[in-house]
Amino acid sequence: MTITPPPSTAQIGVTGLAVMGRNLARNLARHGYAVAVHNRSHARTRSLVDEHGGEGVFVPAESMADFVAALERPRKVVVMVKAGGPTDAVIDELIPLLEPGDIVVDAGNAHFPDTRRREAELKKHGLHFVGTGVSGGEEGALNGPSIMPGGSKESYAALGPILEDIAAQVDGEPCCAHVGPDGAGHFVKMVHNGIEYADMQLIAEAYDLLRQGLGASAAEIAGIFAEWNTGDLESYLIEITAQVLAHTDAETGAAFVDVVLDQAEQKGTGRWTVQNGLDLGVPITGIAEATFARALSGSVPQRAAAAGVLPASTEEWAVPAGDRDAFVEDVRLALYASKVVAYSQGFDQIAAASEEFGWDIDRGEVARIWRGGCIIRARFLNRITEAYQRDADLPLLLADEYFTGAVGNGVAAWRRVVSEAALHGVPVPAFASSLAYYDGVRAERLPAALIQAQRDFFGAHTYRRVDRDGVFHTEWSGDRAEEKR
Amino acid sequence: MTITPPPSTAQIGVTGLAVMGRNLARNLARHGYAVAVHNRSHARTRSLVDEHGGEGVFVPAESMADFVAALERPRKVVVMVKAGGPTDAVIDELIPLLEPGDIVVDAGNAHFPDTRRREAELKKHGLHFVGTGVSGGEEGALNGPSIMPGGSKESYAALGPILEDIAAQVDGEPCCAHVGPDGAGHFVKMVHNGIEYADMQLIAEAYDLLRQGLGASAAEIAGIFAEWNTGDLESYLIEITAQVLAHTDAETGAAFVDVVLDQAEQKGTGRWTVQNGLDLGVPITGIAEATFARALSGSVPQRAAAAGVLPASTEEWAVPAGDRDAFVEDVRLALYASKVVAYSQGFDQIAAASEEFGWDIDRGEVARIWRGGCIIRARFLNRITEAYQRDADLPLLLADEYFTGAVGNGVAAWRRVVSEAALHGVPVPAFASSLAYYDGVRAERLPAALIQAQRDFFGAHTYRRVDRDGVFHTEWSGDRAEEKR
Repeated sequence: MTITPPPSTAQIGVTGLAVMGRNLARNLARHGYAVAVHNRSHARTRSLVDEHGGEGVFVPAESMADFVAALERPRKVVVMVKAGGPTDAVIDELIPLLEPGDIVVDAGNAHFPDTRRREAELKKHGLHFVGTGVSGGEEGALNGPSIMPGGSKESYAALGPILEDIAAQVDGEPCCAHVGPDGAGHFVKMVHNGIEYADMQLIAEAYDLLRQGLGASAAEIAGIFAEWNTGDLESYLIEITAQVLAHTDAETGAAFVDVVLDQAEQKGTGRWTVQNGLDLGVPITGIAEATFARALSGSVPQRAAAAGVLPASTEEWAVPAGDRDAFVEDVRLALYASKVVAYSQGFDQIAAASEEFGWDIDRGEVARIWRGGCIIRARFLNRITEAYQRDADLPLLLADEYFTGAVGNGVAAWRRVVSEAALHGVPVPAFASSLAYYDGVRAERLPAALIQAQRDFFGAHTYRRVDRDGVFHTEWSGDRAEEKR
Repeated sequence: MTITPPPSTAQIGVTGLAVMGRNLARNLARHGYAVAVHNRSHARTRSLVDEHGGEGVFVPAESMADFVAALERPRKVVVMVKAGGPTDAVIDELIPLLEPGDIVVDAGNAHFPDTRRREAELKKHGLHFVGTGVSGGEEGALNGPSIMPGGSKESYAALGPILEDIAAQVDGEPCCAHVGPDGAGHFVKMVHNGIEYADMQLIAEAYDLLRQGLGASAAEIAGIFAEWNTGDLESYLIEITAQVLAHTDAETGAAFVDVVLDQAEQKGTGRWTVQNGLDLGVPITGIAEATFARALSGSVPQRAAAAGVLPASTEEWAVPAGDRDAFVEDVRLALYASKVVAYSQGFDQIAAASEEFGWDIDRGEVARIWRGGCIIRARFLNRITEAYQRDADLPLLLADEYFTGAVGNGVAAWRRVVSEAALHGVPVPAFASSLAYYDGVRAERLPAALIQAQRDFFGAHTYRRVDRDGVFHTEWSGDRAEEKR
């Protein structure tokens, strides 16, 4: 098979044809776009065209120069290679081949500070750089992902309609919108993933509670999750949890989940999210506990040292027969409430970053484009969009009238669940942390006052008062009084 | 007053004479060292000599060149200026004035990656760079701090004896030891501060529980803390908590803690500690919750939006009269257990960093030098030293025989306290998180298996099995089966 570079007929190009890039290219082709395709090793390009050439118009290119030459102006180049060095290498190769006004799209999982750096760099060359979050995994990339592009408004005017075409569609609306300048798209994708960590940990805790409290099998709990998926909790993650729990291991005949090693892995976006929450001073405790819970599960030497050595000081748990339905409902309500806290914290983080970086992110739009295509797609995202439509500057999602009612309804149940878990030795770091956040944010008075007083005592860090403005220091001891400030 | 640079007679020098540098210089002079002193604005140098010249031999210098000229070889220069740019500026000024073999000591609160960078840079000039943690605040600097020096063994041979002289002394031993190469000293100081955050938050939660559960006044709770300070909890922070709570505001006559604004501030070392815990994959949940609890207390718009709007769904709490003593004892045991978890996590982090950076840190020594001078000094640090003497490679402090007993003794109480807090709406993020960690690390089986199964389902991230080695992927649906891996 020989390939001759054709004239500039492709409306968009994809370079990097591993499974995500390949599926994005196919998605574009299926939507009627002529797609230039390129990969460092040409065999991948060839196999894409061989296997899926019938799905639309592909314009394969062997060299980056031919690839760029195949594109209509302004050129739209989607880079879908590994984050970090490989992305920089491809961008460096592209720059001399492009012209002012062309658009480079990084659709990988870049860390947003890298995206900010690249955007600033490409701007010097007159090029647009669009860091975009793409969620939905391989299947989403092929059939309609949630797309979160950052970058300039100008670039979105040219690129947006194409991305909106290939995005997931919900109620006739595309799950794609311009998130904000430079790193805003990748930032929002990062928080999406952080929330995903929290959501998955909460589901895991709910499962563990049901398993231990009811002494139920994975299959029985699959039924509970399937039932939950018909109500407020309806979401992709609840749906697949039911499927996973119902699955039988072909080799052993045991419940699949019981043969999986209980050490959760991670690729780093949860960690980035929490590190950024710390930088911004936004308490995203649900995401933090979820991230650390994965780390704990993989702390093999620590778990080995603790096993059978740390006393449980509790008895085997068995929810009485007559209370089982009420217990299941309690867990459902606790899961919903904890989930709302995780989202509330995540949207708080988006607001703080938007302020910090001047991104002007519309949080209602973010919730809207997460309704389809992505891993955390869920019915209740509509409620979040509505909340920000009621008040675009809402300081706390939890305090929106809908969520106050929806969560309030379950607070007593949530308290019972966290209490029972503590008494019976079931680790529920995310449930407990979310409840503590809820009680903390609504507290009229926090013991932080004592911490400020301690800090003034040992470090002369000063404090403020409840009764008047100003900054004060108390001279606590003779020693310290030597040094006036 | 005119100052003529004398011959090189000073054994050590301090540049940067704000309160910490000034007190360190006085401490050195009081121990019989001739101390060269220098400050960017000379007025500070002059006032130090004017006010404290009688405490020992100070050799004041107006210029950095005179300051360096006043020092015996190998020169020992303690830099005590603001972390970041100012520290770099002083180091840059020093380099051309020094000779191979001289020692530059950064005794400020540098972030350990900066210390690693500076150490590598100064090594090129044949200079030793010692980043050292100094804890104990102004009073410690003057009367004996805990000192945690990093840097080369060679530099410690020259510098160590002086630092050991001026450090706090406990049972005839100095609270100073060579921690490890390059950034090890500042790293350990960072974790010290992280643990301090956790310790303070745990104390604040214990106070809040007693206040709400007993309806007690600050003064009454001061008595409880004073009593606790005679037992296992004996520590500087418990001691000063009793003093702070007993203090009456001179202006209003109210309990001092009640007039302090309940928004805790922070200077960044808690944040650094948690961010590093995430990088290393060490679950330091107690420190994380403490850091986020401070952030939450300062989240003014969120708290304002929540106040009176989020339903509590619980009733006013009053521990029955006959149960009050038992409740206080439960809180004490829960505080102790949670505190051990925070330290266990922090020492785990030190072990992970020691491994990562090749520092070979002796954790027993770290606990030993924290017994005096520093903010977290406490009786139970002896128990930690003993634990690492029993097993230098102990994978989990909690699993040491002493702590298994000491904590195990209080686990049932801890469960009751976390349970009651959840039921009564008292936010105890650090207590609850520490218990969840305890139950997580001792769990035979964690629901992380479900998370791995979900990850394989939606992202083909693969999983391992409990029954044999290898990495596996299940083909979950027709769509995904299109793409073989």
